[in-house]
Amino acid sequence: MFERLALVGIGLIGSSIALNAKAHRLARHVAITTRRQSTLDRAAELGLGDSYHMEAADAVRGADLVILCVPVGSSGAVTAEFADALSPGAIVSDVGSVKGSVIAQMRPHLPPGVHFVPAHPLAGTEHSGPDAGFEALFRNRWCILTPVEPIDEAAVAKLRAFWEACGSNVEVMTPEHHDLVLAIVSHVPHLIAYNIVGTAADLETVTQSEVVKFSASGFRDFTRIAASDPTMWRDVFLHNREAVLEMLGRFSEDLASLQRAIRWGDGEALFDLFTRTRAIRRGVIEAGQDTAKPDFGRGTGDPAPGAG
Amino acid sequence: MFERLALVGIGLIGSSIALNAKAHRLARHVAITTRRQSTLDRAAELGLGDSYHMEAADAVRGADLVILCVPVGSSGAVTAEFADALSPGAIVSDVGSVKGSVIAQMRPHLPPGVHFVPAHPLAGTEHSGPDAGFEALFRNRWCILTPVEPIDEAAVAKLRAFWEACGSNVEVMTPEHHDLVLAIVSHVPHLIAYNIVGTAADLETVTQSEVVKFSASGFRDFTRIAASDPTMWRDVFLHNREAVLEMLGRFSEDLASLQRAIRWGDGEALFDLFTRTRAIRRGVIEAGQDTAKPDFGRGTGDPAPGAG
Repeated sequence: MFERLALVGIGLIGSSIALNAKAHRLARHVAITTRRQSTLDRAAELGLGDSYHMEAADAVRGADLVILCVPVGSSGAVTAEFADALSPGAIVSDVGSVKGSVIAQMRPHLPPGVHFVPAHPLAGTEHSGPDAGFEALFRNRWCILTPVEPIDEAAVAKLRAFWEACGSNVEVMTPEHHDLVLAIVSHVPHLIAYNIVGTAADLETVTQSEVVKFSASGFRDFTRIAASDPTMWRDVFLHNREAVLEMLGRFSEDLASLQRAIRWGDGEALFDLFTRTRAIRRGVIEAGQDTAKPDFGRGTGDPAPGAG
Repeated sequence: MFERLALVGIGLIGSSIALNAKAHRLARHVAITTRRQSTLDRAAELGLGDSYHMEAADAVRGADLVILCVPVGSSGAVTAEFADALSPGAIVSDVGSVKGSVIAQMRPHLPPGVHFVPAHPLAGTEHSGPDAGFEALFRNRWCILTPVEPIDEAAVAKLRAFWEACGSNVEVMTPEHHDLVLAIVSHVPHLIAYNIVGTAADLETVTQSEVVKFSASGFRDFTRIAASDPTMWRDVFLHNREAVLEMLGRFSEDLASLQRAIRWGDGEALFDLFTRTRAIRRGVIEAGQDTAKPDFGRGTGDPAPGAG
């Protein structure tokens, strides 16, 4: 499909792309570059690519597809390092969880003649690094493309085919809309998970060991999300600031109203909300976005999460 | 172990107890009572007990163990219905997610000579009703006993043995401490899950179908928790009000501080928190409270939750 794929950054997403490129023969040559020597060595040990480079420019030279797989806050600086080495006609993409900021950071560095098609595979786990990657990561998952002017339809189609070959379903939307959607389906959920885990750790009346011991009652689901990569997520919040603050404002407003319902014993308000939210879960399952098995099918020998 | 076990209420927890009583021969006779005829009929169809009663008093008469398995808000009224029929020396227990309120509701109705040992198995799924029960529900899960004065040690030991036979690990604590611990490990996590699902449903800028479609990026974990039984959870919040409001106040305070860090670009504060929370996840896994598999081991064909 491509002659030379350059992966700039080789964490969970980069390594999973590399495994797909190999498994589905999506590129004749996979060139890998990353900032840290130890990570690059590990990628080589794992046999993720065909060549390994400490200089990003060496990896992208001659590449017809370049995918940036770094924390979104580094997008601009890293692009500046390799932009001069890009070949005319190359497709430049990324995998960042924020699109507006990444586009603003990358675009000024890109020479004319390359096709910039930002992308975001909605996939990941709480693990990170080149060892965390696996081929099935993108299977049945959405990948959102947010092409920017001037749009080259052939380049968009080629990148779409690449992600489809990785098993993804591809959707196209504007960067602005992407950032709003992700703020509510991903960024704010992660933020409140991080927050409650922090709140629990800081209590004096309940010890941290009690919190851990009894975590299966609900809390442990939040700890999984709150174990996601700190650098990546710091950058997400700083770079999708407006949308996150907007959604967070609504969340807090709604929570204050729920708090008031509890304080004043308004059981009807609580019951109404809890019935509405149950219906949304059914929608998620009907849309094939989660398993209907109780407790995510975590299994019976495993501890199961809590009724109360 | 017991001559006659009376289960008052036969939802997820009641039916799971019934299945354990049968599998492990914990009672010679299991008497089941519940308010709704259709639920009682379903319990009989499933063969959960040995006798079925529309009157709670008929079920508890002659029982040496009575376990109340109803939403915590009904504890007092339901106890009043059967209290006069209790046999001297019977152990009366419950499975409520709140202990202070349940004790205050039940105790005034109990005749002298019965042993009241409140209990709370920390187990459940997002499903409810007599069909949702399964034998392994309590296996490797905590069951907290909160004995009240006058404490009969023999009765406590017998109830402990009952729960251990169901596969649980048993812990004893005061009702007050139980309610604080559960507020942070369970009640507030459920409340914020309900809340964010409600917030997402009410947006104008992002449609509900988009929220559902892209939910695998983190949001869907919250929808599972927010699919828990509405009646049960309404009662939990109304009956553990003080502890929930206290923990919620801290959560909101911490969230406001996180919001401020995002607004002012304080990446260091975010990174520090996200690193601390990651360590707590490791503690949860080391304590055997969750699987270390990425994404709860939801499996690869299934959609996996999100990196951004």
